[in-house]
Amino acid sequence: MQTSLSEEVEVSVKFSEVDALGIVWHGHYIRYFEDGREAFGKKYGMGYLDVFEKGFTTPLIHIDCKYKRSLRYGDKAIVRIKYCPLNVPKIRFEYTLLHSETQEIICTGTSEQVFLDTEKGLLQLVDPQFYEEWKQKWKIS
Amino acid sequence: MQTSLSEEVEVSVKFSEVDALGIVWHGHYIRYFEDGREAFGKKYGMGYLDVFEKGFTTPLIHIDCKYKRSLRYGDKAIVRIKYCPLNVPKIRFEYTLLHSETQEIICTGTSEQVFLDTEKGLLQLVDPQFYEEWKQKWKIS
Amino acid sequence: MQTSLSEEVEVSVKFSEVDALGIVWHGHYIRYFEDGREAFGKKYGMGYLDVFEKGFTTPLIHIDCKYKRSLRYGDKAIVRIKYCPLNVPKIRFEYTLLHSETQEIICTGTSEQVFLDTEKGLLQLVDPQFYEEWKQKWKIS
Amino acid sequence: MQTSLSEEVEVSVKFSEVDALGIVWHGHYIRYFEDGREAFGKKYGMGYLDVFEKGFTTPLIHIDCKYKRSLRYGDKAIVRIKYCPLNVPKIRFEYTLLHSETQEIICTGTSEQVFLDTEKGLLQLVDPQFYEEWKQKWKIS
Repeated sequence: MQTSLSEEVEVSVKFSEVDALGIVWHGHYIRYFEDGREAFGKKYGMGYLDVFEKGFTTPLIHIDCKYKRSLRYGDKAIVRIKYCPLNVPKIRFEYTLLHSETQEIICTGTSEQVFLDTEKGLLQLVDPQFYEEWKQKWKIS
Repeated sequence: MQTSLSEEVEVSVKFSEVDALGIVWHGHYIRYFEDGREAFGKKYGMGYLDVFEKGFTTPLIHIDCKYKRSLRYGDKAIVRIKYCPLNVPKIRFEYTLLHSETQEIICTGTSEQVFLDTEKGLLQLVDPQFYEEWKQKWKIS
Repeated sequence: MQTSLSEEVEVSVKFSEVDALGIVWHGHYIRYFEDGREAFGKKYGMGYLDVFEKGFTTPLIHIDCKYKRSLRYGDKAIVRIKYCPLNVPKIRFEYTLLHSETQEIICTGTSEQVFLDTEKGLLQLVDPQFYEEWKQKWKIS
Repeated sequence: MQTSLSEEVEVSVKFSEVDALGIVWHGHYIRYFEDGREAFGKKYGMGYLDVFEKGFTTPLIHIDCKYKRSLRYGDKAIVRIKYCPLNVPKIRFEYTLLHSETQEIICTGTSEQVFLDTEKGLLQLVDPQFYEEWKQKWKIS
């Protein structure tokens, strides 16, 4: 049984992301996490547009980031994202950002998303069918 | 005949808007211009939502900014926006940003928007009726 | 003994903050939290520039946000920020965002910051003197 | 005589860049232009950090963008940047964004930057020596 799916994507620090202290402004890491989710979604067929076509959106209900080191202009970092199976109709990811050269941990984080029926605007209390099928396809018990 | 409508709004430089050089990153001025358009729209009944309710959106087709001085964290600036009547179905604004304390000019700019029919996705080649009425109301010939 | 200091500031949702789903993109709430910290810092003399003048910066080490409801373009929200005294040299805040009209809770969150000596680049393991004095001034035991 | 240097870089539209109308918010194109400048700077040894090491910064004094078509979430675009030699101590670039698949022009733009001596804070009225040498190296008359 496969209990975790994961993906990696590299991000480059842009000039516009660096603050007056010369380091990436803390809020931009939330964007790097989203870059991770996009890469994951593309790899495993669970992107925003895939989900939207099935009639759902997956709004964030929780995000959390622990900052260990900072990134500077010119730095590159690897966003590692790992899918964490849950017994409730939520999508949970864990994130680790590593400095591309030194491999030092920059930050870690988690996110949780729920399923919302786009037409009815209703929160899903059980897994939507397409998500059930997706889990079966990727052998997530 | 009234040929120009205008509005002013004050913006405060946020920490997240300042770059590694300690000054506001140049791209954020585009956002300050939009703050000006929002204040104008609210004052004269020509906001995004007003326009949207009439069945149109007003996408930007041109934006232009000339930077004279820079703003730093903690600074406040006045965004002065002036409506420039045109004989074509476009909305043109002129912007001047002034340092709130010194009154020095920080930057100037212009923007142009067109009317797009949201349902048909069509560019309007003549003024939409609600815009004609809006111009009459504000005595813009 | 005063055990908590707090402040409130109102934020207006900007057009550029709303995503394709018509709601504020989740990462912007981190910015609203910072608006809260700025207002708090101004009220109690603990702003970025105050701290910087004392020879320190206060980088974030943890941020956390729980999303309950979403904000739309045109909405206003109150950012309530509360200072939480700790026995370690960290600054902890709790945040609550309320819809300005309905008073519904939009999201809640927390943040933690440490003290970094700007010259030596060293993490402070005891409260810097200016912070000790600040706590005494505001009667935080 | 080589009169123009150029570079291309591909950008992917992120979810956080798309506005309530489902298209990239117009201000983000300024960021795409900067992605172009970064790629150009890397290729020709004229990046922010290269310039900074020589004792200068190159603040923007003018930016201009003409929007032709819009980009949507999931789209990719090529940023084409072309260096335009001037007889004054300014750096001028021209930009063209093309949809990666359709090759349709999304927008065009220009930018102008001046040289500022970082230590003295003085605008340079003649080309700094390193820029003279850079132009000679790349055979720009």
